Amino acid sequence: MTSPQIKVHLDHIGIAVKQVPELSRLFSILGIPLGPVEAVPDQGVEVHFFNLPGGAPHLELLSVQDPEGTIAKFIEKRGQGIHHLSFSVESGSLESLCSVLRNAGYRLIYDVPRLGAQGMRINFIHPQSCSGVLIELMEKSA
Amino acid sequence: MTSPQIKVHLDHIGIAVKQVPELSRLFSILGIPLGPVEAVPDQGVEVHFFNLPGGAPHLELLSVQDPEGTIAKFIEKRGQGIHHLSFSVESGSLESLCSVLRNAGYRLIYDVPRLGAQGMRINFIHPQSCSGVLIELMEKSA
Repeated sequence: MTSPQIKVHLDHIGIAVKQVPELSRLFSILGIPLGPVEAVPDQGVEVHFFNLPGGAPHLELLSVQDPEGTIAKFIEKRGQGIHHLSFSVESGSLESLCSVLRNAGYRLIYDVPRLGAQGMRINFIHPQSCSGVLIELMEKSA
Repeated sequence: MTSPQIKVHLDHIGIAVKQVPELSRLFSILGIPLGPVEAVPDQGVEVHFFNLPGGAPHLELLSVQDPEGTIAKFIEKRGQGIHHLSFSVESGSLESLCSVLRNAGYRLIYDVPRLGAQGMRINFIHPQSCSGVLIELMEKSA
């Protein structure tokens, strides 16, 4: 079931928080600068991007705006903390990767990819088949 | 409380699992190769390293070997999943960073750094003051 043609890149680590200042204060001490801030109303969050040096994945703080949103529910159930790992794939290859994964028995959260932050097309692999890790897959919109 | 001289590098993401095969199968599909495997008896785990391309942080699967160890207890309490983010600092600067953090009100897990995997000196910032995120700080041993 290996697919040597597939190459993923770790784009970011998503962290679910009630409020941003607690971690942004630490990141400031560690020399990790704040980047853009973007509202993602579909998911009931505001996203604060923190950029690590050297092309490393960035950190995304997902702060609750809508108490009924998925992130608010995650925090209610599991507490604040690391929420997901996000891997980007080459433009045009997300659907084929999702097919490979479905054929291998993985459950994808969406039937077809949806639009996420920064205009990306996204889907998620359900954490039940990934040892509890929520994995996002993303590609740039065409 | 900013310390512009401090520069951290995201070294790895630690993932607590009961067993390795479930995620290693997924990583194989995603084209993420397995690297070294190392036993860390002090923490009751075996560590499987997975190397992402391009100098990105690697992924560390921490699989339970000792049911009384800290990782086994973490899984018992919170379930399998992402356990910590690990930042490396320049050799010789871990103690001064820990001092800066203590002075800023952060609680460090160890009074003095301990020896971790791959001969690194490590300490952790307690997740209570980091929005639920366990953050490891590490430097190469002298």
